[in-house]
Amino acid sequence: MAYSHFISEVLVRPDDIDMNNHVHNSKYLDLVLAARYEQMTRDYKMSMDDFIQRGLGWVVSACFIQFKRALVLGDTAVVKTGIMEYGTHSAKVGFEIFRKETNKLSADGYFEYTLINLKTGRAEKLPDDIIQKYSI
Amino acid sequence: MAYSHFISEVLVRPDDIDMNNHVHNSKYLDLVLAARYEQMTRDYKMSMDDFIQRGLGWVVSACFIQFKRALVLGDTAVVKTGIMEYGTHSAKVGFEIFRKETNKLSADGYFEYTLINLKTGRAEKLPDDIIQKYSI
Amino acid sequence: MAYSHFISEVLVRPDDIDMNNHVHNSKYLDLVLAARYEQMTRDYKMSMDDFIQRGLGWVVSACFIQFKRALVLGDTAVVKTGIMEYGTHSAKVGFEIFRKETNKLSADGYFEYTLINLKTGRAEKLPDDIIQKYSI
Amino acid sequence: MAYSHFISEVLVRPDDIDMNNHVHNSKYLDLVLAARYEQMTRDYKMSMDDFIQRGLGWVVSACFIQFKRALVLGDTAVVKTGIMEYGTHSAKVGFEIFRKETNKLSADGYFEYTLINLKTGRAEKLPDDIIQKYSI
Repeated sequence: MAYSHFISEVLVRPDDIDMNNHVHNSKYLDLVLAARYEQMTRDYKMSMDDFIQRGLGWVVSACFIQFKRALVLGDTAVVKTGIMEYGTHSAKVGFEIFRKETNKLSADGYFEYTLINLKTGRAEKLPDDIIQKYSI
Repeated sequence: MAYSHFISEVLVRPDDIDMNNHVHNSKYLDLVLAARYEQMTRDYKMSMDDFIQRGLGWVVSACFIQFKRALVLGDTAVVKTGIMEYGTHSAKVGFEIFRKETNKLSADGYFEYTLINLKTGRAEKLPDDIIQKYSI
Repeated sequence: MAYSHFISEVLVRPDDIDMNNHVHNSKYLDLVLAARYEQMTRDYKMSMDDFIQRGLGWVVSACFIQFKRALVLGDTAVVKTGIMEYGTHSAKVGFEIFRKETNKLSADGYFEYTLINLKTGRAEKLPDDIIQKYSI
Repeated sequence: MAYSHFISEVLVRPDDIDMNNHVHNSKYLDLVLAARYEQMTRDYKMSMDDFIQRGLGWVVSACFIQFKRALVLGDTAVVKTGIMEYGTHSAKVGFEIFRKETNKLSADGYFEYTLINLKTGRAEKLPDDIIQKYSI
C-alpha cells in the first residue's frame, strides 16, 4: 500500500457462518466494507455521508480476494486497509484480514472503487481536495 | 386468512444455509418477503414501486414466526401469503412456508405492516382504493 | 424477564442496511443471535460449543419481534437478553434492542428455543445442571 | 472458458438489495454460487453432496469479480459458469452474470477452488474420474 493503512476490528457473527462452519466467502467482503466505512469516518475524516452530501458516491468496479485461513465463530477479524493507487476516476484499496487470536493472515486482496456523480451516475474526476484528504 | 392467498416458489440458495446445515432462521423472513414482493406485482397488480410512486411505503411493525420443519440446501420453498385483517393504518399478512418436495409445512406466522407517508415518515390511513385492490 | 439479563454491543455493518436505508428487518434477529452467543460464553459460562460437546443443540421453535425505531448505518445496537421462562424441553429468551447513541428502544421480542439431542434430532428434557447454570 | 458452460437463472430477492438500491456487491458471489450448485447437480451429474460422500470438498482459494451494470430489485440474473482450467489440486471456474431483461453483462470474473480431503483438511489431487466428469 502506497499510503497509510488503518486497522479496524470486526467481530464475526453467527449469521456470517455457513454450512462449512466458517465465515461464508462473500462475507469477507462485508467485513472489509465495515472496516472501510469506519476508517473513512475515523481516520480520513471524510465519511461516506460526506461524499453523498457533495453529490458523490463510490461504487465497486472490481474486487479480488485470496483466502488463506478461514475465520470461524467467535473470531474477531482485524481488517487493515489502505489506498494502493489512484486512477483519474478511481481508487484502489488494498486489504488484509487477520485472525485476531493468532495474528495470522486470513485473506487479502483489493477493491477498485470508481467515484461517481450521484445525479448523473457517471464517473467523476477525483477532486484534488479529496485526493489530499485520502493521501495521508 | 380472510382474503385470497397467493403462492410463490423461492429456491433456497447456498448462502441461506447456516452452520446447522439448514436455512438460517432469519432467512425465512426473507423468503416470505421475496414471495410477497412478487405477489404484490403479479397478483394484486400494485407493486411496492407503485406505492412509492404515490409517496407511500410499508414498514414492518411486528413479525411472528413458528418453525416446524427445517428447509435444507436444494429445497424450494412454496410460500403462501394472504391478508388476515386491516387496521386503520396497517395490514396483517399471514404466511405459510411449505417444502415443495414433500408439501409439508416448514414454518408459518404473520407480518404486521404499517403504511407510512414517505415524506413525513408518519403512519398513513389506508386509502380506500388500496384496500379495494388488496381485498381480492 | 424472570432471570438475569445481560447486555452486548453489536455494531451495525453496511451489509445490514437495506434499500430503505435502515437495518433490514430480518437482521435484527441476527443482532440478537450475536448477542446471545456472546452472553452464553461470557455470562452463563456455558457456550453453544459446550452444548454441542454434550451432544445437545438449541433450535429456534418460534420468534416474535416488534419494531419501534429503525437502526441505521453507524449505529451500535445494545442488545439485552434474558430468560423469561423454562418449558420441559424449551427456554423462552426475551430481548430488547436499544440504539446506543440515544438509549431508545429499537425493537423487542422473544425467541423460543427447544433443546434437542443432536444424534436423534428429538427434543430433550432440560438437564437440571443446565437449568441451574442458566438460572442466574 | 475451455470447457462447456452452463446457465442458471437466479431471481434477485429484496434482501439482496443494499442502501444503493441495487444488488449488494458481495451478493453477486452468492448468485454465482447458487448457479454453480445447481449446475453441479443438473449438468455435471456430480453434486456437492456427491463430493462430500466421497470425503471431498471444494473450498474457494481466490475470487475475482468485475462489476459492469448493477442488478436491481425485480431482476433475474442469468448466470453462466464453466471451467477455465485445472490445476493439480484445483479448478478455475469462470462466470458471467447477465441481466435477463436486457441480456446485458452485469458482472464477470472467476473463482479458484481447491479440492480438499474433508478428514485431513489438506489439498487433494483431482481424481481422474472427477476431471472426466467435469471436462464435458
